[in-house]
Amino acid sequence: MAVNFSFATAGQIIFGNHTLDKVPDLVAGFGKKVILVTGKSSLRAEELMAKFSPGTDTILFKVPGEPTTDLIEAGVKLAREHNSEVVVGFGGGSVIDSAKAIAAMGTNKGELLDYLEVIGRGKPLTERPLPCIAIPTTAGTGAEATKNAVIKSPENNVKVSLRSSQMYPDIAVVDPVLTWSMPPALTASTGVDALTHLLETFVSNQANPFIDMICREGLTRISRSLRKAFTDGADKQAREDMAMASLLGGMALANVKLGAVHGFAGPMGGMFPIPHGAVCACLMSAVIEENIQALRNNKLDSSKFDELAKILTGNEKAMSNDAAIWASELVAELQVSTLSEFGLTQKDFPLLIEKAKVSSSIKGNPVELTDEQLFRILERSL
Amino acid sequence: MAVNFSFATAGQIIFGNHTLDKVPDLVAGFGKKVILVTGKSSLRAEELMAKFSPGTDTILFKVPGEPTTDLIEAGVKLAREHNSEVVVGFGGGSVIDSAKAIAAMGTNKGELLDYLEVIGRGKPLTERPLPCIAIPTTAGTGAEATKNAVIKSPENNVKVSLRSSQMYPDIAVVDPVLTWSMPPALTASTGVDALTHLLETFVSNQANPFIDMICREGLTRISRSLRKAFTDGADKQAREDMAMASLLGGMALANVKLGAVHGFAGPMGGMFPIPHGAVCACLMSAVIEENIQALRNNKLDSSKFDELAKILTGNEKAMSNDAAIWASELVAELQVSTLSEFGLTQKDFPLLIEKAKVSSSIKGNPVELTDEQLFRILERSL
Repeated sequence: MAVNFSFATAGQIIFGNHTLDKVPDLVAGFGKKVILVTGKSSLRAEELMAKFSPGTDTILFKVPGEPTTDLIEAGVKLAREHNSEVVVGFGGGSVIDSAKAIAAMGTNKGELLDYLEVIGRGKPLTERPLPCIAIPTTAGTGAEATKNAVIKSPENNVKVSLRSSQMYPDIAVVDPVLTWSMPPALTASTGVDALTHLLETFVSNQANPFIDMICREGLTRISRSLRKAFTDGADKQAREDMAMASLLGGMALANVKLGAVHGFAGPMGGMFPIPHGAVCACLMSAVIEENIQALRNNKLDSSKFDELAKILTGNEKAMSNDAAIWASELVAELQVSTLSEFGLTQKDFPLLIEKAKVSSSIKGNPVELTDEQLFRILERSL
Repeated sequence: MAVNFSFATAGQIIFGNHTLDKVPDLVAGFGKKVILVTGKSSLRAEELMAKFSPGTDTILFKVPGEPTTDLIEAGVKLAREHNSEVVVGFGGGSVIDSAKAIAAMGTNKGELLDYLEVIGRGKPLTERPLPCIAIPTTAGTGAEATKNAVIKSPENNVKVSLRSSQMYPDIAVVDPVLTWSMPPALTASTGVDALTHLLETFVSNQANPFIDMICREGLTRISRSLRKAFTDGADKQAREDMAMASLLGGMALANVKLGAVHGFAGPMGGMFPIPHGAVCACLMSAVIEENIQALRNNKLDSSKFDELAKILTGNEKAMSNDAAIWASELVAELQVSTLSEFGLTQKDFPLLIEKAKVSSSIKGNPVELTDEQLFRILERSL
């Protein structure tokens, strides 16, 4: 079949240990008035700020958890009042998504709801966002290389995106050193997020050879290094692999739709206080299994899952279902929380299925799943 | 060794058969005043122009061969007088490089020499270039994904670059259909250009895993498809592979320095009327051989050449020198002109070596080569 794809990514990607040292010069290249978006604990951000060139006027904006519409509006107000010229996002996926949203709304008139998909008016951005530098401190979301910001609407119990091809960060600085201090649980949940990005885009019905190339590289690194990074956070090689895999996952998901794991993740994250990585971990194996079965039932090609299994297990003889087994063994080892721990029960399934079916992500699933199949996925994932 | 790299590419890459159909809308997104840069024969460009949205004011600028400083200055004058809002490059590498240079000089004050490296004042571009859409009609240079324009200075008998991280095209539209009509000789010479881009960046002393990934994908496609595209121009699969490999080669060379082949190519192309692809073809095998020998003499790791040999030959047991043999057999089959046919003789070697040694490209060569080794490369390549 003829190849057809479109690809875009962050304006510049700077990768490597201690590349954080380059940030002050990069910031100075964009201006003197900076809004520095960071997480709950701002210690490292303050250290970074102290290195900005003299005369830089920096304001700090904290994102203590997954961003809500109100939080983003507060950040936008701050940036507009400050006349910020550049937005720096220094933290995990929530922080970087917030920085991207603030950069977008810093130049585009009106309120966030004008531009939000699903719950908002979904207008396209008309102005180029403020320059944005994204510096991840976890290895999972790949938000430094994506064009959307996931935002929670507490009123609607749902997570939705502000999305635009203009929202790729101008510069992504991926410094694996920043991830060395991640505790095992965070290493696990963010790592599984990266894994599902690569896994779902690799088997996506929108997959193409360019993204396949990116996925193979990322999946290979995760298969050899996620366990290592979890058991020994000081393993620099493993940390580097995970940072790279996370970046590759972001590059992939920004250009190809995901699948059923992420189809469920949006509504589940909106309805329950479950971390995104845990949702991915719990669903991954059952989604693989159900997809393979559904492809076979429909007499569709499932060879991509054979290749997936070979990459993940490192065994040339592995077959499709071995990918599901590998995934469930991995999740068990990583001791990720289960969905039922967060209060999810069978009675929530119908609403979750209804919402997942209209999600953007599920449009990338390799095969259309019936309600019954979606139900089975949830049942096996509890 | 820890991974460290920087990566950037065209703002958006659109790949696939018949993606040319998207160009009128893409152009309209940037403005109404268009300068359309194309080659000697403007038939296809005129067909494209006819599809631009009503009210578009398009001027045509022809680049009949490798661009000279005078030609670029003429194009810049035209664009400035016309107040062009967008530059479209529709042709081979010379055309696309010209479009990129005109886009850059359309917004940056002064003359070309202010910004040219080596023979000019090498000033950095201060203004963002005009929006530029690059549409290759050959599969070789990868100019749609690079940040430089190679320009010939007849006064100085040399080819030099206008280079800036701002010069990546905003959009690269890679439509393999446009290459279907390339005659075998052009298929061969442009294809070998793409091959040497991938080959030299893969073994470059600046190589990194991200670029390795790109090179492996591109080299695999060339190894299976260059001969096919040469012998049967109607082989759509082979044409697609070559278009993709060319794009990947451009992505690689824009981010990693090349090596001795391209170190010689600049001065050789400046001193003799040899097509760039022919230069690459003639030098390729000897450069591989000499590099492997030099690495061994210096007790340096030559395993990258082993992998190169395996990819090119498709034989898991191939060793480094098999890459050189494969390259020389390929060049023989492709019936590329020899250097001596263009009047190059041994008495030109000292000057060529002197110039190659100070080239930008040779800084990427896997090992520093002595004058004697560089002489031997030329001797074997005549």
